[in-house]
Amino acid sequence: MVGGQLVGDGSRMISGLGDIKAARPDQIGFVRDARYHAAARTTRAGALLLNKELETAASQILVADVDLAYAKVALHFHPVPRAAVHRVHETAVVHPGAVLQAPVDIGPRAVVGECRIGAGSVVMAGAVVGDGCELGRDCVLYPNATLYPRVLLGARVVVHANAVIGSDGFGYAKEAEVWVKVPQLGNVVLGDDVEIGAGTAIDRATLGSTRIGARTKIDNLCHVAHNVVLGADCAMAAGSMIAGSTVIGDRCVFGGQTGIGGHLGVAADVRLGGGSTVLKDVPEAGDYMGHPLMDKRRFLRLLRVLRGMVSDDG
Amino acid sequence: MVGGQLVGDGSRMISGLGDIKAARPDQIGFVRDARYHAAARTTRAGALLLNKELETAASQILVADVDLAYAKVALHFHPVPRAAVHRVHETAVVHPGAVLQAPVDIGPRAVVGECRIGAGSVVMAGAVVGDGCELGRDCVLYPNATLYPRVLLGARVVVHANAVIGSDGFGYAKEAEVWVKVPQLGNVVLGDDVEIGAGTAIDRATLGSTRIGARTKIDNLCHVAHNVVLGADCAMAAGSMIAGSTVIGDRCVFGGQTGIGGHLGVAADVRLGGGSTVLKDVPEAGDYMGHPLMDKRRFLRLLRVLRGMVSDDG
Amino acid sequence: MVGGQLVGDGSRMISGLGDIKAARPDQIGFVRDARYHAAARTTRAGALLLNKELETAASQILVADVDLAYAKVALHFHPVPRAAVHRVHETAVVHPGAVLQAPVDIGPRAVVGECRIGAGSVVMAGAVVGDGCELGRDCVLYPNATLYPRVLLGARVVVHANAVIGSDGFGYAKEAEVWVKVPQLGNVVLGDDVEIGAGTAIDRATLGSTRIGARTKIDNLCHVAHNVVLGADCAMAAGSMIAGSTVIGDRCVFGGQTGIGGHLGVAADVRLGGGSTVLKDVPEAGDYMGHPLMDKRRFLRLLRVLRGMVSDDG
Repeated sequence: MVGGQLVGDGSRMISGLGDIKAARPDQIGFVRDARYHAAARTTRAGALLLNKELETAASQILVADVDLAYAKVALHFHPVPRAAVHRVHETAVVHPGAVLQAPVDIGPRAVVGECRIGAGSVVMAGAVVGDGCELGRDCVLYPNATLYPRVLLGARVVVHANAVIGSDGFGYAKEAEVWVKVPQLGNVVLGDDVEIGAGTAIDRATLGSTRIGARTKIDNLCHVAHNVVLGADCAMAAGSMIAGSTVIGDRCVFGGQTGIGGHLGVAADVRLGGGSTVLKDVPEAGDYMGHPLMDKRRFLRLLRVLRGMVSDDG
Repeated sequence: MVGGQLVGDGSRMISGLGDIKAARPDQIGFVRDARYHAAARTTRAGALLLNKELETAASQILVADVDLAYAKVALHFHPVPRAAVHRVHETAVVHPGAVLQAPVDIGPRAVVGECRIGAGSVVMAGAVVGDGCELGRDCVLYPNATLYPRVLLGARVVVHANAVIGSDGFGYAKEAEVWVKVPQLGNVVLGDDVEIGAGTAIDRATLGSTRIGARTKIDNLCHVAHNVVLGADCAMAAGSMIAGSTVIGDRCVFGGQTGIGGHLGVAADVRLGGGSTVLKDVPEAGDYMGHPLMDKRRFLRLLRVLRGMVSDDG
Repeated sequence: MVGGQLVGDGSRMISGLGDIKAARPDQIGFVRDARYHAAARTTRAGALLLNKELETAASQILVADVDLAYAKVALHFHPVPRAAVHRVHETAVVHPGAVLQAPVDIGPRAVVGECRIGAGSVVMAGAVVGDGCELGRDCVLYPNATLYPRVLLGARVVVHANAVIGSDGFGYAKEAEVWVKVPQLGNVVLGDDVEIGAGTAIDRATLGSTRIGARTKIDNLCHVAHNVVLGADCAMAAGSMIAGSTVIGDRCVFGGQTGIGGHLGVAADVRLGGGSTVLKDVPEAGDYMGHPLMDKRRFLRLLRVLRGMVSDDG
């Protein structure tokens, strides 16, 4: 499962994971780095995941990347929720035209419109699925999540509690002093294996689609505006926000509270430090940070220069 | 409807809008700027909204402001939701003392307290309306939106999914080391035609009212603290936050992730760039930006100066 | 109740609070500072809370801290919601294995899993309590709040509308270009008297617990990541976010939109100005601000220096 090399007794039955200090003999622990070595020598865990052999009574599974191995073992014992038996709670409200590909699990008080939901999907308590939505296989909507109409989810998409997908984009035209609403007629398309954090909001497009690429992960309380195209395999930390029509490449990683302006282009493999503010295109891959945005090492130097400009004594 | 000048065949039946590249002959497209000119010459759309005449087979409607004309045509074909027939879903929970001015549309699992709801209003799935709330005509509450008690909405107010109006202000007094809650006894008053984004939170006043002026639009994940008075015809982009008791004039426009401190005064017609931090009063109209907040052009100059202070070579 | 000294008639019946300008003779007003003195002289209020004697017909209660006295009087007349009679709304969905310590008040459409809820607690409309949660006495969950499984709340914890407690931490391991989810197996523990604002999200730990200390108050739209340990008696203003595994001491106060990086340590009694960005440990108590973070007075000086670097004329 983790492609590791076994050292010691391979016959032990492992029934779960444990913290290395508290693990029982039927549990497997992990040694992320040297801080865990002392505990590893005295652990009661039946097995350990580690990247170099240690003196310990536990069976050792040597792997190149302990975090990755841990993730895989943990997913084995604690998989993402998935519907095994078909169940629609008696208090759920399901449109008669909804197409539910059994087995799906529709929780208490969920409201499911005239939509399609793929096999294995779980819609938890109070979640709302609008008319015309399509969910692929094995999707999970956590409690009180809201999908507006015509939102399209790939397979294995996870939407956490109280997140909103498909709300109107923030679009208005000005007539004299008055804002006139521009109807938001598009939709949102989330690729396979996308995960959306609690309380995050992703707006539908004015026309066309707001798109999140496959396997991209978005943390809590993020905002993705109308017509944004965010690439595949990205990660966006909490509180980050992308303004309208910006196009972002694959494999980008944004730190917390990052802000990206509208109608910009950001290349693939751009990594932005927490709190960065992006007001211009970022045409080249790399590590950037700050406001003004610059090469990360350069910005950290700027912070030191700014400190030097004011003395410490009050 | 849009006060435009017709060029070409005015007899065509138009049944909807379309993207200029994909539109059908019974659809109307729009030409926002020169980037659309090539597509306009070859479009199959029956009609186009544009601000200068082009060579095209489509009927042309020449207007001064294409965006505004587009908004009006789009609203004609896709109006904001409105209750036409009176309907209370069997799973909704409505207080017997609630006054519903027919027609209203109360969706599945909505919970409506002892309140007043104006004709034409729509309360969608899972939305909660507290006791003592008053909604004017043609209001829309999207799914899982929450109104605390005694929140007052004007006519045509739209509250998007999972937004919260009337939560307690963040008020505590200190006794020795301990925070003592200051009960938040006031309410929230939203003027006519206000629109509130998904996941936004607007706190009730300590005493009196937190007020949002008529026609003001607030984007997703914004925060308006207790006793704030925000003027009319303002626009506040995603993630912007206003601390307690600050008073803001009419027609202000705030970029994303703007932060405004408490007990401040901001004049009418103040425009703040995205990511601005406001720690002092802003007594004069104008375009401002940054931290420290200054004239926008001046701040952009400061950003260039800061870049110059650190060389590019790592 | 407030330990004040009475001046004037002590026999008046006071039935509530009023704004000093609008109060009736059976109401008590308060004089926070000199701005209220004129109104105090002419008020019709039966009594006033103030910190120095004034000429007024009202009975005067002289106290050292008017805000604190006001809070206590207000709490007397307007206590935090509490269940007095046991009531489970007919539309609530309660797991047969749930242990409800009477009296509790479970509102319409609430969904309560196999959990324990202490006497006096109120679960409002649409709130969701996951399996294995434990709520102490006199807790309040406002509408559409969501508790994931195994979240532990002390006594008198208040969670405002649409907040989420116990969502998955943002943890992924990288395999080639692909994010592999790290299951989040821990929980969240909120101490006694914690209050959580509307729309705030607090993630469960990867292993172990994300902890919020007793009496800490968190405002709207804040984010607390997995494995954070936040001390007791803290206050965290709206939009503030703490990244994973950071440990923060007691009595810290964070202004709005503060961002604190991951795996950091922040000492007790650290106060951060609004909009601060913390990228390093903060080992000593004090007032800090900005980005780069520094002594608050020093940072305000830096802002003045930066202003001076660019002239006013465009």
